[in-house]
Amino acid sequence: MSQGSFFEQLFESIAERGREFLSQTLSGTPRNTPSLQELSALLLAQRGEATVAALAQRLVTAYQELDEASREAYFTWLAETLNPDAEDVLAAAQRYREERSPDALIALGRVCEAPRQTLFRRMNMAADGTAALVDLRAALLDRLKEEPSLKAVDDDLLHLFGSWFNRGFLMLKQIDWRTPAFVLEKLIAYESVHEIQGWEDLRRRLAQDRRCFAFFHPVLADEPLIFVEVALVKGMAASVHPLLDADKPAMDPKSADTAIFYSINNCQKGLRGVSFGNFLIKQVAAELNKELPNLKTFATLSPIPGFRRWLLSDAVGAADGNDEVKALIEDTRQPVAAPPGETRKDLLMRLVAHYLTRAKRRDGWPLDPVARFHLGNGARMERINWQGDLSPNGLQQSAGLMVNYLYGLDDLERNHEAYVNRKQVVAARAVDQLAKSAASMFKENAA
Amino acid sequence: MSQGSFFEQLFESIAERGREFLSQTLSGTPRNTPSLQELSALLLAQRGEATVAALAQRLVTAYQELDEASREAYFTWLAETLNPDAEDVLAAAQRYREERSPDALIALGRVCEAPRQTLFRRMNMAADGTAALVDLRAALLDRLKEEPSLKAVDDDLLHLFGSWFNRGFLMLKQIDWRTPAFVLEKLIAYESVHEIQGWEDLRRRLAQDRRCFAFFHPVLADEPLIFVEVALVKGMAASVHPLLDADKPAMDPKSADTAIFYSINNCQKGLRGVSFGNFLIKQVAAELNKELPNLKTFATLSPIPGFRRWLLSDAVGAADGNDEVKALIEDTRQPVAAPPGETRKDLLMRLVAHYLTRAKRRDGWPLDPVARFHLGNGARMERINWQGDLSPNGLQQSAGLMVNYLYGLDDLERNHEAYVNRKQVVAARAVDQLAKSAASMFKENAA
Amino acid sequence: MSQGSFFEQLFESIAERGREFLSQTLSGTPRNTPSLQELSALLLAQRGEATVAALAQRLVTAYQELDEASREAYFTWLAETLNPDAEDVLAAAQRYREERSPDALIALGRVCEAPRQTLFRRMNMAADGTAALVDLRAALLDRLKEEPSLKAVDDDLLHLFGSWFNRGFLMLKQIDWRTPAFVLEKLIAYESVHEIQGWEDLRRRLAQDRRCFAFFHPVLADEPLIFVEVALVKGMAASVHPLLDADKPAMDPKSADTAIFYSINNCQKGLRGVSFGNFLIKQVAAELNKELPNLKTFATLSPIPGFRRWLLSDAVGAADGNDEVKALIEDTRQPVAAPPGETRKDLLMRLVAHYLTRAKRRDGWPLDPVARFHLGNGARMERINWQGDLSPNGLQQSAGLMVNYLYGLDDLERNHEAYVNRKQVVAARAVDQLAKSAASMFKENAA
Amino acid sequence: MSQGSFFEQLFESIAERGREFLSQTLSGTPRNTPSLQELSALLLAQRGEATVAALAQRLVTAYQELDEASREAYFTWLAETLNPDAEDVLAAAQRYREERSPDALIALGRVCEAPRQTLFRRMNMAADGTAALVDLRAALLDRLKEEPSLKAVDDDLLHLFGSWFNRGFLMLKQIDWRTPAFVLEKLIAYESVHEIQGWEDLRRRLAQDRRCFAFFHPVLADEPLIFVEVALVKGMAASVHPLLDADKPAMDPKSADTAIFYSINNCQKGLRGVSFGNFLIKQVAAELNKELPNLKTFATLSPIPGFRRWLLSDAVGAADGNDEVKALIEDTRQPVAAPPGETRKDLLMRLVAHYLTRAKRRDGWPLDPVARFHLGNGARMERINWQGDLSPNGLQQSAGLMVNYLYGLDDLERNHEAYVNRKQVVAARAVDQLAKSAASMFKENAA
Repeated sequence: MSQGSFFEQLFESIAERGREFLSQTLSGTPRNTPSLQELSALLLAQRGEATVAALAQRLVTAYQELDEASREAYFTWLAETLNPDAEDVLAAAQRYREERSPDALIALGRVCEAPRQTLFRRMNMAADGTAALVDLRAALLDRLKEEPSLKAVDDDLLHLFGSWFNRGFLMLKQIDWRTPAFVLEKLIAYESVHEIQGWEDLRRRLAQDRRCFAFFHPVLADEPLIFVEVALVKGMAASVHPLLDADKPAMDPKSADTAIFYSINNCQKGLRGVSFGNFLIKQVAAELNKELPNLKTFATLSPIPGFRRWLLSDAVGAADGNDEVKALIEDTRQPVAAPPGETRKDLLMRLVAHYLTRAKRRDGWPLDPVARFHLGNGARMERINWQGDLSPNGLQQSAGLMVNYLYGLDDLERNHEAYVNRKQVVAARAVDQLAKSAASMFKENAA
Repeated sequence: MSQGSFFEQLFESIAERGREFLSQTLSGTPRNTPSLQELSALLLAQRGEATVAALAQRLVTAYQELDEASREAYFTWLAETLNPDAEDVLAAAQRYREERSPDALIALGRVCEAPRQTLFRRMNMAADGTAALVDLRAALLDRLKEEPSLKAVDDDLLHLFGSWFNRGFLMLKQIDWRTPAFVLEKLIAYESVHEIQGWEDLRRRLAQDRRCFAFFHPVLADEPLIFVEVALVKGMAASVHPLLDADKPAMDPKSADTAIFYSINNCQKGLRGVSFGNFLIKQVAAELNKELPNLKTFATLSPIPGFRRWLLSDAVGAADGNDEVKALIEDTRQPVAAPPGETRKDLLMRLVAHYLTRAKRRDGWPLDPVARFHLGNGARMERINWQGDLSPNGLQQSAGLMVNYLYGLDDLERNHEAYVNRKQVVAARAVDQLAKSAASMFKENAA
Repeated sequence: MSQGSFFEQLFESIAERGREFLSQTLSGTPRNTPSLQELSALLLAQRGEATVAALAQRLVTAYQELDEASREAYFTWLAETLNPDAEDVLAAAQRYREERSPDALIALGRVCEAPRQTLFRRMNMAADGTAALVDLRAALLDRLKEEPSLKAVDDDLLHLFGSWFNRGFLMLKQIDWRTPAFVLEKLIAYESVHEIQGWEDLRRRLAQDRRCFAFFHPVLADEPLIFVEVALVKGMAASVHPLLDADKPAMDPKSADTAIFYSINNCQKGLRGVSFGNFLIKQVAAELNKELPNLKTFATLSPIPGFRRWLLSDAVGAADGNDEVKALIEDTRQPVAAPPGETRKDLLMRLVAHYLTRAKRRDGWPLDPVARFHLGNGARMERINWQGDLSPNGLQQSAGLMVNYLYGLDDLERNHEAYVNRKQVVAARAVDQLAKSAASMFKENAA
Repeated sequence: MSQGSFFEQLFESIAERGREFLSQTLSGTPRNTPSLQELSALLLAQRGEATVAALAQRLVTAYQELDEASREAYFTWLAETLNPDAEDVLAAAQRYREERSPDALIALGRVCEAPRQTLFRRMNMAADGTAALVDLRAALLDRLKEEPSLKAVDDDLLHLFGSWFNRGFLMLKQIDWRTPAFVLEKLIAYESVHEIQGWEDLRRRLAQDRRCFAFFHPVLADEPLIFVEVALVKGMAASVHPLLDADKPAMDPKSADTAIFYSINNCQKGLRGVSFGNFLIKQVAAELNKELPNLKTFATLSPIPGFRRWLLSDAVGAADGNDEVKALIEDTRQPVAAPPGETRKDLLMRLVAHYLTRAKRRDGWPLDPVARFHLGNGARMERINWQGDLSPNGLQQSAGLMVNYLYGLDDLERNHEAYVNRKQVVAARAVDQLAKSAASMFKENAA
């Protein structure tokens, strides 16, 4: 059965009701409300663009009014119905292998693309269509665990978003106290690394010795996609607390020598997997470099989100012959995280160095997600900071420890190459030595 | 051979030179200049986005400096090298037919997409990347006739552009005498229906009884994609000459009752096939309706570009038993087009009505491209105008005749349906009767 | 002594030091810091504009760094030194009476204008000069009570500001949640009628059923000069509490029939006496009328700021033969204001009606300043509201009562004429009757 | 008779008709049209601002519709009627001399200001009021020669404009090819030094090696007040012709070392006497310095507009004993100016040097107006250029000669001082020597 005939049949099957509905819809007075599935099929069935925009608008509005059950049913329908026809695909693949002609290749492309991609592209023509589709994917991601068959729908959306939110279409904008309140309140909502405590806290984060930048997309003009917060300081910050102290007077940015990227937040759940972060950090570093030539060092002050979990699972083996480790793990198991005492410092520093540089996933990449992100950008793991974040969250995730990743503009590419091609964790000598000193504990079991 | 291994091999084969070059490139001092092909392969081979933007910039710059021969070689390379692997495609197609699983479908999508799509997406990350790709496609279209194998490359670009220039991303802007000169001079350059004779002519076309609207894309902010020129008049204009008369004083737009769309121009050759026009006309009509409720009629004054060609080829048969037609055709054959005399009026009007409503392509759609465009939008062929355009071009294409297509807001959808589903040419009674009166001439040969 | 010679002598007297200083100042390295008085004399002595802007900048900066004592000395100097020469003035006046010639008139104007007006005009050429002068006048107003001789300086500034802040140069802007935080925080700072409790309160005041408008001046772009807050409601609001309730859900502005102007605030102390308010209310009413044709009534909900003071002073006489009034006054005398009980309602309503409509200043205008403002605008005193504002401030000033002034677009001019020409207090019948019913209490002493 | 009573009488005299008219006017349906004089008197008579804006609008509109005779009558009325009362003035002057009190000074100011200043300030409240007043003064200036009694009205307007168009309120904007056509066409209209030949010429003047800057006022947003054209070149330009050559390819501005200010034009006749030019040149030099640090020299290439006139009048005496001069003067007398031959070069250069440096007005300032302007700014007369401008206008005014005035940032103030305080013409040594060599010719008659 050809794809064309699929739609012809689909169209015929909804023809009587659909045609009547279509003219009602377009004249603004639908008598009976069609389902979202019917609307989608109608939208797909349109030839020419004359009626597409009006139908797309209708569909987007109807989607936004769905109750949860209907939305789930709609997702299932998208996953089950709007797939490429397997026989058509096989025939096109065989023809392509035989002919290797442009025509065969073009035909293959047509037949392999799930029709829902066309549906989504048409929905995008509605006013706020892009925002609606980003929301739709956010809802779909929530369902994905329970209904893994939605994965292909998700992949189609991700594919489209990768195209629409291409780096070339993003605009970097500085956010400061002159930014509309409408946008600022979104920072408060989206900041999840170091929560913003209200407008006064936000104001301090936008003072003269702070910077904030975000990527925006032209059609989501008021919605930051990702933003990064930067503190301009003297020397590489070792603890996040002075950076977040709302009462600390702002220093003259001209006397700073270091830019600390202390928080980076993705704002749109529906854009998960579309990567902006790498571009953002580099471009912000370049902007800051231009504005303030006095800045010599660009580094992060980052959490180590997987450390505690690793300590309680993978590190347990290391504890076997080591009472000190065993005691540490016992402490760590306590439900309420407390700042570790100074007596634990030496051991914890060695363990975290080991975790960051030696603990790997099965595929050979580092276990820690933040490490993966910054190493992939070409940064160097520069320094581990004892008592860098003593907030409940900081204790819970990272036992209060933090890391600086150094963005050395001259070394970024070399580091990136070493990491990407050889999976090498580029770290400062001191970090390496800390890790080495922990090696004996992990001799027997290659974590 | 898997796609992964294709790139691994490609990468290995350029490895020594490439790696060295890459570090040179990124440090800004390449000693030996790589070819565009090598740059492209390198860009494709990047993992992570760390080096992508810099390489993309390098590639775009290098492309812009190509001489013609190298550009042609590059096009050929794009067409021959960056294709899906036919064996991989077949394997994925077979797996999909068996499993029908999301994973199989996702894998199929990956394997069927030509790697050059990834290349283009990455090139787009360069500053002005979008503009460069639009230019690249314009050059490619020029080569297409001579080198039909470029068709698949072209299709990949069209696919991407369809996504990037989705209606949802376009901005409608009014163009008037407050618009930057920088943009205005592009109108002068791009207007090809009724050429603009200079700044004074342009100024008249932007006076208070004229309107001009264009679509823009956020990343091509100074480049109109398509624009339409509108005259606000009393009664449905029958000739283009009063509309273009630069000396005619401007009337009060509040006393107009009709908006005549008298010129619509695509500006970017590289975006051919990405359709904007339908959206443009409807949205402009809506804007005008809002601004000037006194406007009752929205219509075009359009050329009939295929008429003369048809007269000299397809209509010849009709001339057999008809001396008058024979004489007309002889006239028309003259190299220098002259305004047809009044004695020809009756015959010409009947012939053009026949041409517009009855002359069809093999696939059943009307022969005249402008008719296809407006009928597809749901417009009605309203009136044929004798001596509507006596310019050399107007005589050459259309024997001086023009047509009004009426955009009746209430009938657009019904007309569109009739045209799209039943290929019906919706025309006013008078036009139909003219056509009918010509029928006897074409009895024997169904044109 | 002619004015010219005054400056010549002034200039000579500071010549040696001044000339040296001037060249140092303008080359950026002054060795000895001149006083503000010397800088001012130098600035006044410049011929041509070549050095004016640089000196003006220097003067403005120096002014901003003054300590309090020096500022006071500077004010005194401005008042004592930079006056017109009385002999010159008299001579010019005599010449003008004799000649009545344009030249004599022009000469008169030159000689009568205090040289400090030229000084202020030149200071205005500095960056932020306007803001500095507005601040200067604010400080001057603070000194005025203690040093009445500054009155003429103040009058010169007021004269200049009246010219610079002419209605023709002001821009009306809507303030909403899209406004930069930088401006919004100023609303929080300047609102003094009904204090804003923080960002959440502000946000409610900018919700969809609220409006806020302000006048701005081009060179003080981030500084609202005056702003008005409006609530869109059903029916004429009688109490301010529902309007200020941050938890009340916002209603659809299309279903409102009344716009209540519930707060109007001047922002710049230094612009006291330059009137914007009348223009603001009318223009906002016109804007709202255009945006929301459903609005039928435009009215204020206003305090009665002088009522309690009047009750404790002027109304005492009325209490003589009236125990009820006497008791009321006793209550009112309590330092902590409490909401008056219902038993007092009848009496209070009558007294306030009397106060608003009959209590006059010696010059015949109403005693209540808010009444003067709105009656002068042509509004009508429409309704007195029992328990309209039970906040401490509302109780303290107005015994919890409020008034609606009705802006009836058709009656504004007639009311304005009646008020301005005949000092007539235009009030609704019910208000008048309340006042009449109080008349007997005030028989003997015409308040 | 006090001023108050003047207005009271005025008001009474127009009372019956006026009151009726006022209410008609404000309700939008005036039955009998009042004269502009009556409208003005009414506007002046308003108390409070409630009706001022509406009346001002009415007055401005009425003014714009005046025929010439009525306008002249209105001007005369303004000059004769709206003057200060001479008796009031004398009384106030006497009181001021006796009291020297702030109150006396304030009263004096009130009584000396012509009531038309209040009228103009109120007219300014109309939409486009400022533009209307600038136009009014332009018309008034045209009448001034014929009716010198308008001088005082003109002075009042100049006084107001000096305040409104204070440097602090002007915005410097760069004009380039991105500027709206609406503004660009005004450059074409206003350029009178070196006429712009159309859009192509304009475009060359805005190319990458040219700069154009203008001052704008916030309420005349589309109207440049004054603009300057700059050419970026190598070496100090000696002739204007290469600068105006539309076909000359644009050079890279980064390789220029000199900025030549080759044309400066006031745009608003109605603002004559409000000086912007000094500020403009200096601020533009500062902007260019910031943008292009490669620029080392800032100089003008200026006409010598009074030279030929001087040659034919004041220089005649010098010709007595000098046949060469006599011959030159005979040549110069020819109605059609021709480029002077090389044989005249030596003599002409000496004469023009004499004219520029030694020829003075009775008040001791240089005869040449352009010299006065630039010397007053602190520029140095740097070089005289033979055959600098061979256009008809250049020959007619300056015998084809031009001058460079050098703006040496470090010397501006010293030069300015020397010029302003000692009337010293600061010139380069070569210019001085040329002038000296001409001295003998002018021995007998001190020009």
